Amino acid sequence: MGEFELIERYFRSTARQLERGDVVLGIGDDAAVLDMPAGQQLVAALDTLVEGRHFPAGCAPRSIGHRALAVNLSDLAAMGADPAWCLLALTMPAAEESFLDAFASGLSELALRHGVALIGGDTTGGPLAVSLQALGFVSPGQALRRDGASPGDLLYVSGTPGDAAAGLALLQHAGFASTDVHREYLLQRFLYPEPRVELGRALRGLASACIDVSDGLAADAHKLAIASGGGALIDAARLPLSDALAGVMGVERAMTLALTGGDDYELCFTVPASRRAELEARLDNVKCRVTCIGSIGTQSGLFVTHHGADLHCDTQGYDHFRTSG
Amino acid sequence: MGEFELIERYFRSTARQLERGDVVLGIGDDAAVLDMPAGQQLVAALDTLVEGRHFPAGCAPRSIGHRALAVNLSDLAAMGADPAWCLLALTMPAAEESFLDAFASGLSELALRHGVALIGGDTTGGPLAVSLQALGFVSPGQALRRDGASPGDLLYVSGTPGDAAAGLALLQHAGFASTDVHREYLLQRFLYPEPRVELGRALRGLASACIDVSDGLAADAHKLAIASGGGALIDAARLPLSDALAGVMGVERAMTLALTGGDDYELCFTVPASRRAELEARLDNVKCRVTCIGSIGTQSGLFVTHHGADLHCDTQGYDHFRTSG
Repeated sequence: MGEFELIERYFRSTARQLERGDVVLGIGDDAAVLDMPAGQQLVAALDTLVEGRHFPAGCAPRSIGHRALAVNLSDLAAMGADPAWCLLALTMPAAEESFLDAFASGLSELALRHGVALIGGDTTGGPLAVSLQALGFVSPGQALRRDGASPGDLLYVSGTPGDAAAGLALLQHAGFASTDVHREYLLQRFLYPEPRVELGRALRGLASACIDVSDGLAADAHKLAIASGGGALIDAARLPLSDALAGVMGVERAMTLALTGGDDYELCFTVPASRRAELEARLDNVKCRVTCIGSIGTQSGLFVTHHGADLHCDTQGYDHFRTSG
Repeated sequence: MGEFELIERYFRSTARQLERGDVVLGIGDDAAVLDMPAGQQLVAALDTLVEGRHFPAGCAPRSIGHRALAVNLSDLAAMGADPAWCLLALTMPAAEESFLDAFASGLSELALRHGVALIGGDTTGGPLAVSLQALGFVSPGQALRRDGASPGDLLYVSGTPGDAAAGLALLQHAGFASTDVHREYLLQRFLYPEPRVELGRALRGLASACIDVSDGLAADAHKLAIASGGGALIDAARLPLSDALAGVMGVERAMTLALTGGDDYELCFTVPASRRAELEARLDNVKCRVTCIGSIGTQSGLFVTHHGADLHCDTQGYDHFRTSG
């Protein structure tokens, strides 16, 4: 099977499952041509997943397809954007039907659920890696940025951070098989993160700043605070730990993973304290847990406390190029 | 030096060299936010270069940066689009300053020349590979497609195809050093292809079909013909061979390379015979050689003749996943 038949077979059919009237020309030409909705701004994200870095060798292909799209939809969610289209650059050592079938179905299922059309891309030979580009829209001035938080703003996180890092640890140490319900839950949280697109939409015009949590909650909250010219205060006792995370890892390790584990793809955001009730009213319509974990302060840095005591916390996050030690 | 400092240091400064008023939010947030020009369609391309596949190991980093953008601008050129923005996903084993410096300058120089702003992306650890996403605009209905050619249309190619394939062969067999002017010319044609953006613009509303030549002229002309429901006839005697290609390779090998060599990033396009004079008038303002090499016929397939005799020609092009033999 040749390169172009691959695209035809696995991805053009995916593209056809979702007919968007704004796709003038999709897969199959030199580039895609798209109708932009009048008066909207374009939002663009591009993220890569590399085997052995972002997922372990031997990871389920369905998960790789899902995550390639999920991490980019998470970036759009963090901007409060409506996702619309994506392009896929898939590099793989060989074209294996079973891999492609599962990869495409993982990507398609999430794309269909969010109304995202696959409009083009590239397949090439090489070490397994996936770059995906997601495009969406936002009304002018409505994009959620990192740099708008003010001292006194409340700091929130969605979902239960730390689960995905625990899932990855289980995957690496115990393999895929698991009969325990908590372990299975944590694995799924790593393999199939749910981008918080709906929450991002609900925060438009309300959140003062927003970032997606990919490198660890503490590191990403710190980045938000730096961009906003302030510091972040987190009360570790308020961290929303899942029963699975606390049950499998114990509370102390669970807190550490919630603060420093990566791959959560949750949203961390700030809201002025005066608008707390408005936030809660909006959240009634969003199927996603949201927890206030602290606030923004004037002193730069990240400060984590637990029942009044200071905790040391690594704010570096995951860095592909930092030398260890 | 960490991952985020890398982006800051090498690429944010590149972004700042070109201030486009339509970049609302560039590098440094979860995604870029962009103002679309009213009434224009968006054109999007995503192509990947992998070390050992698209360029040899040890290739000049400046060339890798140039080519990553050039191959995508070539896709936009083939659509007749005006390039505007790009996103970069760079995967590399380690963050070496000298590599990044040269890579960024190769990319920047071409980006500035075409008014393209680097608005975001991703750096990650892994085997050397570059995915780049280029975005541009076209007026509704003006995009050049592959499928619009009709029997009798004249078939054209820009530049002198085959040079890049010869340059790559020289690079792989003789290394980088060369004192011979022809050899040096061919090397440069592989290392620094010039995307035909200006030509693509000039062809809007005139070319009936267009494709960029990346897999070999014969293969890509054949793809255009297939998409248009016809066949392609090429007169090999009319192939525009550069003096360098014919001088270094000999005329026979030069013809083969012009037909089947890859990496040209020229445009192959068709124009109705009745509009030939109009094409020639428009080309007066385009700094790029264009040659009529044949026509579109009703019988499907690719037919190459040379002084009346049929030539066999591989129309498969480069395929990353075809098993040999």
